[in-house]
Amino acid sequence: MTARLKVPGLAGELAAEFAGTLILILFGCGVVAQVVAGGIGDHDSIAWAWGLGVTLGVYVAARLSGAHLNPAVTVALAVFKGFSWRKVAPYALAQLLGAFVAALLVRWNYTEVLHAADPGLTIKTQGVFSTLPGNGSLPVGEWGAFRDQIIGTAILLFVILALTDVANNPPAANLGPFVVGLLVVAIGMAWGTDAGYAINPARDFGPRLASFLTGYEGAFRDQTGYLYFWIPIVGPIIGGVAGAGLYQYLIGRFLPSAEPQDVGEVPAARDSVEANRG
Amino acid sequence: MTARLKVPGLAGELAAEFAGTLILILFGCGVVAQVVAGGIGDHDSIAWAWGLGVTLGVYVAARLSGAHLNPAVTVALAVFKGFSWRKVAPYALAQLLGAFVAALLVRWNYTEVLHAADPGLTIKTQGVFSTLPGNGSLPVGEWGAFRDQIIGTAILLFVILALTDVANNPPAANLGPFVVGLLVVAIGMAWGTDAGYAINPARDFGPRLASFLTGYEGAFRDQTGYLYFWIPIVGPIIGGVAGAGLYQYLIGRFLPSAEPQDVGEVPAARDSVEANRG
Amino acid sequence: MTARLKVPGLAGELAAEFAGTLILILFGCGVVAQVVAGGIGDHDSIAWAWGLGVTLGVYVAARLSGAHLNPAVTVALAVFKGFSWRKVAPYALAQLLGAFVAALLVRWNYTEVLHAADPGLTIKTQGVFSTLPGNGSLPVGEWGAFRDQIIGTAILLFVILALTDVANNPPAANLGPFVVGLLVVAIGMAWGTDAGYAINPARDFGPRLASFLTGYEGAFRDQTGYLYFWIPIVGPIIGGVAGAGLYQYLIGRFLPSAEPQDVGEVPAARDSVEANRG
Amino acid sequence: MTARLKVPGLAGELAAEFAGTLILILFGCGVVAQVVAGGIGDHDSIAWAWGLGVTLGVYVAARLSGAHLNPAVTVALAVFKGFSWRKVAPYALAQLLGAFVAALLVRWNYTEVLHAADPGLTIKTQGVFSTLPGNGSLPVGEWGAFRDQIIGTAILLFVILALTDVANNPPAANLGPFVVGLLVVAIGMAWGTDAGYAINPARDFGPRLASFLTGYEGAFRDQTGYLYFWIPIVGPIIGGVAGAGLYQYLIGRFLPSAEPQDVGEVPAARDSVEANRG
Repeated sequence: MTARLKVPGLAGELAAEFAGTLILILFGCGVVAQVVAGGIGDHDSIAWAWGLGVTLGVYVAARLSGAHLNPAVTVALAVFKGFSWRKVAPYALAQLLGAFVAALLVRWNYTEVLHAADPGLTIKTQGVFSTLPGNGSLPVGEWGAFRDQIIGTAILLFVILALTDVANNPPAANLGPFVVGLLVVAIGMAWGTDAGYAINPARDFGPRLASFLTGYEGAFRDQTGYLYFWIPIVGPIIGGVAGAGLYQYLIGRFLPSAEPQDVGEVPAARDSVEANRG
Repeated sequence: MTARLKVPGLAGELAAEFAGTLILILFGCGVVAQVVAGGIGDHDSIAWAWGLGVTLGVYVAARLSGAHLNPAVTVALAVFKGFSWRKVAPYALAQLLGAFVAALLVRWNYTEVLHAADPGLTIKTQGVFSTLPGNGSLPVGEWGAFRDQIIGTAILLFVILALTDVANNPPAANLGPFVVGLLVVAIGMAWGTDAGYAINPARDFGPRLASFLTGYEGAFRDQTGYLYFWIPIVGPIIGGVAGAGLYQYLIGRFLPSAEPQDVGEVPAARDSVEANRG
Repeated sequence: MTARLKVPGLAGELAAEFAGTLILILFGCGVVAQVVAGGIGDHDSIAWAWGLGVTLGVYVAARLSGAHLNPAVTVALAVFKGFSWRKVAPYALAQLLGAFVAALLVRWNYTEVLHAADPGLTIKTQGVFSTLPGNGSLPVGEWGAFRDQIIGTAILLFVILALTDVANNPPAANLGPFVVGLLVVAIGMAWGTDAGYAINPARDFGPRLASFLTGYEGAFRDQTGYLYFWIPIVGPIIGGVAGAGLYQYLIGRFLPSAEPQDVGEVPAARDSVEANRG
Repeated sequence: MTARLKVPGLAGELAAEFAGTLILILFGCGVVAQVVAGGIGDHDSIAWAWGLGVTLGVYVAARLSGAHLNPAVTVALAVFKGFSWRKVAPYALAQLLGAFVAALLVRWNYTEVLHAADPGLTIKTQGVFSTLPGNGSLPVGEWGAFRDQIIGTAILLFVILALTDVANNPPAANLGPFVVGLLVVAIGMAWGTDAGYAINPARDFGPRLASFLTGYEGAFRDQTGYLYFWIPIVGPIIGGVAGAGLYQYLIGRFLPSAEPQDVGEVPAARDSVEANRG
């Protein structure tokens, strides 16, 4: 938060986390619906629209809440950046709720094409809402997916900290949200094979619950019948903390501590970077 | 408008809305012609070129008119941001005219390939100019398309307000038009299945009229014979107001009111953001 | 040129035009060789790499020469922006030479794959170097290609003037070259069907000559045997002047004239914009 | 290094080169694994994720080390920009180690899909880790690949110097890393046919070694059995020096020498550019 802002209060912060995650998932689940059920676009469309959804969600929320949009980010910032522990659960719930409502909207808007492509609402279109090991087809298994979620989220948090640490060299002109979106584009292109790059418990569990409540009876299980839903929750939390810690070890500890003028006279272009630090 | 500018007068504003929408549609209808009639590129090309057309059209017009380029934007700004109601109709007409002339240029330049691909000028290439429920093939129906246009345009206006509200954290260095273009790229990738993401009455009706006047006899009807043309007009107007209102409710009301120095001493990099506020 | 620079002299300007156009064509002809002869990528790769080549070429040259990289730009700036007429021919020659040398490098580096894909060096791979009506296959004809080159280059110059006019609202932070590259990406996606979007006489004639001198005997003719080479030279010159004039008519005349402080105290981020004005 | 920073010492510089190259290769080898072994995405995905990996790796490392991430860059900066020769070997080793560790992580995370797609760990998936002449299939040969690596790396260094020379017009707002990533995207699209655009000895040899130690017995040889591994090491070193020298000859010598205020009062947005100068 910058000195120029009134503290918006927890209500504003939670509204922003809700709205930012809503926007993120409107694009994220929306693009998978368009590709999988509508037959328009391919995996690159998915990578781009997810990443751009992150960019847009962060622009929506950053001023008020810091735009975590992801419980793995919230927990990692609590562990390493002094984000208040008592806000962790409210933030995570707001994120989850935003993702849940967005998934309901996608479910509603794509009703006709989902039912046309998959009348039984099976695992065939489950991927519109939540992730599966090997995206439902590759022989990766639960352990492979768990390992993947730890590594993938570690990469996410490592780079997010690099991009938002004012003692490092973040993008200026308030373009951090754009570059964070590109980070998620690249993760989608390079780290989406084993477990569909959930890397965000709210992104995965909110839409999973929404799909379960609207007819996807197998939403909590994977293609082998395994009760899979906890992996994209626990894996990202562990990975996020690991990645943030590694950033501190490899980069953060060599940087000078934040200079005094960072407080109260932040240049406008770095506001959201500040905000991201909670 | 910033203090450094002479007020350009309504003539300049309307010329800018005409020119900006012209550029937008030159790319928008152009890319669909290239993909559908020329066989070059795919749906991702369409999403990118439409979005980049928005970026370029906004750069063309933002200084003079605020670059609405879309009656749904103009109406939403009149409802929520104090844009003058008496300018709403002139702006919308200038936008419509720009889209109409651009579509005529596309129609002219792609004469040979359109006639080669679709000698009867049927619904097969109607999508070059105007939208159809389910893009002419998916079983979405008129209600599905109407619902989709409301939701899609609500997303558009929600995020546009987030990206241009100086009390929030807009992109600086005058890169707002770039990020607004990315928003439209993402909408094209994630919200284009049910109704071809018109989300702009001028974008849809102007080229529809141009195609009708140049040989597309069925331009106002959809694949079922329904007189479809009003849906991408009315849906976006409703959705735009809904999305802008939701932004005010979830984000805007928690932000501090605009600070005094925003008037008259706006940094250059935020000029177009200012302009966007009408 | 800004007040902080020594005038580099015509030698530096021509070296920059040569180098910038060289970089542009290394990417432009390179990507077509990779797609057509190497079988890697598709038309979207071509659109992106051409556009990014423009971005990179402009960054190379803008400080010294203004980075025209295109005789159609040079002529239009001479007509409307006061660029010195006596420099037009030297600039155009430097651009042509840069494109010619770049095409020789592409020809050399892709020797093996060009000969493997097209042992006779025929029209099949001519498109690596120069353009053809309907890209060599669609039924567009010479008139269609000529009309297309006028319109396409008019769009190019209209938007370039919008993006570099300091009285309008250009991108700041010296990101104009990035957005100009996006303009060419979009032209490639939306205006490349009828004549391969040469929109630049140096881009087309330099590589055409290079291919002719290295074994492409039919380089100056199209698929019908017509001596086509003049169309992507004359069309862009006419279109560039038309587009620049239209910009002045629709946008430029409503803008305030350049303010005094623009000379001599230009903020760093706008230097290349200044330079672009010659 | 800027005056506002404590000198981080060689430990910090090497940690940053290690971490930045690690991030680069996590995306670079990751995306090829996803495309080749996972069957998700295509060559454009590879070009984008490699380029974005460069962008992200440079943001990670630029403040501490200047973010060379490539021995060809380090050597060229030592020859032309005064980078300390005694740091060249340590930098190159840190880069190599980062690439090696990243490749092990990719090898580990993609274990199941690599073994499913290529049980014998043959040349079929060798391209996930290291490059081959003609990408293992096109008839390019060792000489063609060597020539290609010289030209491709010359282009890389020519443009990197243009993008980071404060006497030229680099992108501001600390967006240089973004544009450098776009440069690598464009190289991947236009200069990847003959030798897979290694253009970086650490990028190629580190993962090659990692693959050899984890079961790829033929890692050092190409499809003809030739001991190929030295070509993407020696070619890039030669090409990098040639390209940097050409930049100095065509552009650098015409620019004014760095102005006094560049030292000690660098605007924040240009820090990483400064850092890139070593």
